[in-house]
Amino acid sequence: MFTLSQINRFLLGKPLPTSAYSHERLTNFAALAILASDALSSVAYATEEILLVLVAAGSRSLGLSLPIAGGIILLLFVITLSYRQTIRAYPQGGSAYLVAKENLGLHAGLVAAASLLIDYILTVTVSISAGIAALTSAIPALDGYTIELCLIAVVLLMVANLRGVKEAGRIFMIPTYSFIISVFVLMGLGFYKYSTGQVIATVPLLPVSQPLSLFLILRAFAAGCTALTGVEAISDGVLVFKPPEWKNARTTLLWMGGILGLMFIGITYLTQAYHIIPEEGQTTVSLLAREIFGNGFFYYFLQLATLFILLLAANTSYADFPRLSYLVSRDGFLPRQLSLLGDRLVYANGIRLLSLCAAVLIIIFKGQVNALIPLYAVGVFTSFTLSQLGMVIHWFKSKSSGWQQSAVMNGVGALTTAIVLGVIIATKFLLGAWLVVLAIPLLVILFLKIHSHYENLAKHFRDEELSPYRCPLPAPDTTIKHSAIVLVGYPNRGTLEALDYARLVAQEIVAIHVDIGTTNQAALRRRWEELEIHVPLVILDSPYRSVVQPILKFVSEFEAERPHGFSTVIIPSIVTRYWWEELLHNQTALFIRQALRSNQCRIVTTVRYYV
Amino acid sequence: MFTLSQINRFLLGKPLPTSAYSHERLTNFAALAILASDALSSVAYATEEILLVLVAAGSRSLGLSLPIAGGIILLLFVITLSYRQTIRAYPQGGSAYLVAKENLGLHAGLVAAASLLIDYILTVTVSISAGIAALTSAIPALDGYTIELCLIAVVLLMVANLRGVKEAGRIFMIPTYSFIISVFVLMGLGFYKYSTGQVIATVPLLPVSQPLSLFLILRAFAAGCTALTGVEAISDGVLVFKPPEWKNARTTLLWMGGILGLMFIGITYLTQAYHIIPEEGQTTVSLLAREIFGNGFFYYFLQLATLFILLLAANTSYADFPRLSYLVSRDGFLPRQLSLLGDRLVYANGIRLLSLCAAVLIIIFKGQVNALIPLYAVGVFTSFTLSQLGMVIHWFKSKSSGWQQSAVMNGVGALTTAIVLGVIIATKFLLGAWLVVLAIPLLVILFLKIHSHYENLAKHFRDEELSPYRCPLPAPDTTIKHSAIVLVGYPNRGTLEALDYARLVAQEIVAIHVDIGTTNQAALRRRWEELEIHVPLVILDSPYRSVVQPILKFVSEFEAERPHGFSTVIIPSIVTRYWWEELLHNQTALFIRQALRSNQCRIVTTVRYYV
Repeated sequence: MFTLSQINRFLLGKPLPTSAYSHERLTNFAALAILASDALSSVAYATEEILLVLVAAGSRSLGLSLPIAGGIILLLFVITLSYRQTIRAYPQGGSAYLVAKENLGLHAGLVAAASLLIDYILTVTVSISAGIAALTSAIPALDGYTIELCLIAVVLLMVANLRGVKEAGRIFMIPTYSFIISVFVLMGLGFYKYSTGQVIATVPLLPVSQPLSLFLILRAFAAGCTALTGVEAISDGVLVFKPPEWKNARTTLLWMGGILGLMFIGITYLTQAYHIIPEEGQTTVSLLAREIFGNGFFYYFLQLATLFILLLAANTSYADFPRLSYLVSRDGFLPRQLSLLGDRLVYANGIRLLSLCAAVLIIIFKGQVNALIPLYAVGVFTSFTLSQLGMVIHWFKSKSSGWQQSAVMNGVGALTTAIVLGVIIATKFLLGAWLVVLAIPLLVILFLKIHSHYENLAKHFRDEELSPYRCPLPAPDTTIKHSAIVLVGYPNRGTLEALDYARLVAQEIVAIHVDIGTTNQAALRRRWEELEIHVPLVILDSPYRSVVQPILKFVSEFEAERPHGFSTVIIPSIVTRYWWEELLHNQTALFIRQALRSNQCRIVTTVRYYV
Repeated sequence: MFTLSQINRFLLGKPLPTSAYSHERLTNFAALAILASDALSSVAYATEEILLVLVAAGSRSLGLSLPIAGGIILLLFVITLSYRQTIRAYPQGGSAYLVAKENLGLHAGLVAAASLLIDYILTVTVSISAGIAALTSAIPALDGYTIELCLIAVVLLMVANLRGVKEAGRIFMIPTYSFIISVFVLMGLGFYKYSTGQVIATVPLLPVSQPLSLFLILRAFAAGCTALTGVEAISDGVLVFKPPEWKNARTTLLWMGGILGLMFIGITYLTQAYHIIPEEGQTTVSLLAREIFGNGFFYYFLQLATLFILLLAANTSYADFPRLSYLVSRDGFLPRQLSLLGDRLVYANGIRLLSLCAAVLIIIFKGQVNALIPLYAVGVFTSFTLSQLGMVIHWFKSKSSGWQQSAVMNGVGALTTAIVLGVIIATKFLLGAWLVVLAIPLLVILFLKIHSHYENLAKHFRDEELSPYRCPLPAPDTTIKHSAIVLVGYPNRGTLEALDYARLVAQEIVAIHVDIGTTNQAALRRRWEELEIHVPLVILDSPYRSVVQPILKFVSEFEAERPHGFSTVIIPSIVTRYWWEELLHNQTALFIRQALRSNQCRIVTTVRYYV
């Protein structure tokens, strides 16, 4: 049999000393691959989400996907410019939590933190679900195992991150660039075939279930906005760039915006040109790729690259979530355990918490991207807005050179993202966005509760220093003795050792035995004499067969007569060789211990006897 | 908020003193209602189970149900005669466990006990499932909630039995006699309508999916044998009868056999006469009753009576299972906890265990009677066979007056039930009987393992009395002192109280603090001086951020230098007001305690500080 710690060691590797912690710096080319995977990978599902909304209004309305995508690209442009200002102002990395807390106050910071934490969880869930959808599109035989495959992906990411995956930085470039290249090849070949008139698909006629309304168009827009999730990653991670960090980060951000915009508009255009309509069991990108590439190597390569970049996107949350929860926990708004550096120099509890939340969401939403999308983007746009708004305040306060221009850019950014946030909430509220709208304030309340608990505790300890002791010790020269009560059954070797220990720690000892109607009291007393224990034995009758009540009553009365300092209750306990053997023994000791704990000045000690 | 114990009190009533335990005696009329409900209620599903097998061979083969039912009635006659002998020989109640253990030896007794325990669990599961099927047949709207309704029934029976339901004995007569009366009314009206030619149903033509083979006929017979489950109940419960107990029990057994036989053959005959064919979502009895009664009052009355007698049948297992597990546990083959009389004078743990097992089976088999039947009856017929076989030996040993006749009857009974057991296993093995065939020996192995654990422990304590002590105390006149190690963080009031306790129990004290790289060591030492603690403070560096390892190492070395008697490790612990607040504190203390426990002579004590 392996112990838990051996299994851990095997999966996670040896512990690392704190001194091994270091920062690795990345070239722009590598940083783009790692930090932009979340944003870039969204093109794998964003177009489909737009189409899925429009399809309700019949096939003619599908043409609207192109102007909607155009609007989103415009929004991307505004946000990119806005975040370039953040990078300049926060060269150490400007997460929305930090920016909002510093410039808008604590509560805004907490709202940003709550939004971001929810968003990171959803990034894992959505990315993995979309990645598995790419896989099952390519291999339809796997279609029935969506949830299982998603959970396997969560576990793999968790284990990899608990090991610490920083070393592997450069390997991560492969999926991102494979994806970018294959999407561009897809677009190139797609345009070529289209322009040379090789496209034979005709517009299928779809039933109209809903008239085309402004609301529907806005809903499609809101669904497409998921393409923008992750664009903030570069501004959060300025420190991974080589010096001059902020300049490199700004350049990379621009590149990312450009590539993302091109891919998104290209795929949306082609989807329309090739008359692709969303289908059950196949992603839109998969349908498009089969159309353009046929069922050959390129098709499978694209699907695999899609799976991997989406896993990589999920993986960025595995860096972001523990880091943010460490910051929030260090400020006292989340449990302390989230700020502990684990064996392998990662915030292990944050990684575990993220995995748990993601797994629960996957199970609830059955790993369906489509069902998760209405929840997604609410958090992102809340943090976008707060962060940009914080930046506006920042510029007004700092008044550094060129601040007016930056303030305008951030102001436009804040206004735009605020409007989009409104649109997202309004159009997707009933579809699931309400969950997030509800969860954010609840999470903030939780933060504040946790904070006040830690504060109260600290205050309590400061106040206590001056108050009198609760279990006053007798003065050193008095004759008052320390008393111990030993619980005994029918006496065996375990009982004797417990009595020995009592003799070591106490000057006055009494043994008590509870008779629930099954004890031969005379025989017990005889045996007690025989063993020459020389400790008074009290037998308590229990007509109601409760073991706990008579003990509690006796101990309380015993202590009332001896009001000084601590008393010790000693419970002998048999420790069996195997854990399952424990089940064969009465677990009353557990209840007794629980019941006796209520008194502060009573110490309950278990003396274990190993068989 | 209510505490668990308040909820318990509300649901289960006040505790009862042991002196309240008494035996209630029942008239034959009342005893029949209570003890025979299990057997009588089987007619609610037995005919249907026969038809469900025969239907595979097409509609013509359904006619075979009558001779098959006749065969089963014959079997019932043999078993009834056989059990009359048992009652005479075991007037104190002759459960198969007892009879087999006394006459065939321990292992046969354990096999009988295992079979019976499994059978009791299945009785609860099958009866509740069949009862809920009667309910959903009458109210089709409930059809989708089968599992939930079954689980509610389990919980109701559990709570009622944890309260102790003996007082309500007489109330139990209502469902049994309601059921008997309504079945006889059904039969009377059914025969009248049939004989006056009012039956208009025609034989529907069913597809033949399997040729009619001997195997199929035997399988139908095996399925119908579930009608016989529960006939042993009267011989187990002789003591509830008024004196002369055994005579009254024999009379009641005969009545039960007669009523059961009549109802079974009557329903089977009518089912054939009315050309009833099993249907999804309706029981056969419900179909028949709708045919005969129409959709009126009598129909609903019968369905309700069926539900209640089946719940009552399940309830008999709630008496039998805890009683048998008490007996087996008293003999040391099941955990001791099963032999403890609870607050309300019932074997509460047995009741809980039975409920848990039944609930699990209901969930696995989705509350479908049909799926459970192949498992049922294997246990019953195993215990029948062993019990009758034991009786044969009993008669040969005792040679009391008329023993030859009784031995012949029991011998015929044993042979017959053994053959039927063979048929049941052979025909239903692959359908699920293998589960029970596997479970019985596994359970017996478990019994033996548990027994050997208790035996070893008793032997261990006998041997230990002679061996030297493991933690030898120093001689009273030596100067060796008792040592305590106190674990400290940044010192607060809790730390100080823990140190006070250490001063009370030990003569040599050392405090240790683990620095995982976050301690300001100088500040800690300064504070230590300020507080005038006067106990040496050792700070342990932990470059790998493990708290447990350095403590374990230090304590082991410390103890190695002081090889006499016990040492005490004191862990201060903060107790928060609400349980959820505990989650906000580091749970390392738990791991430390776990790790330190490995040494027998080391006592780990927690000193709690209440905030």
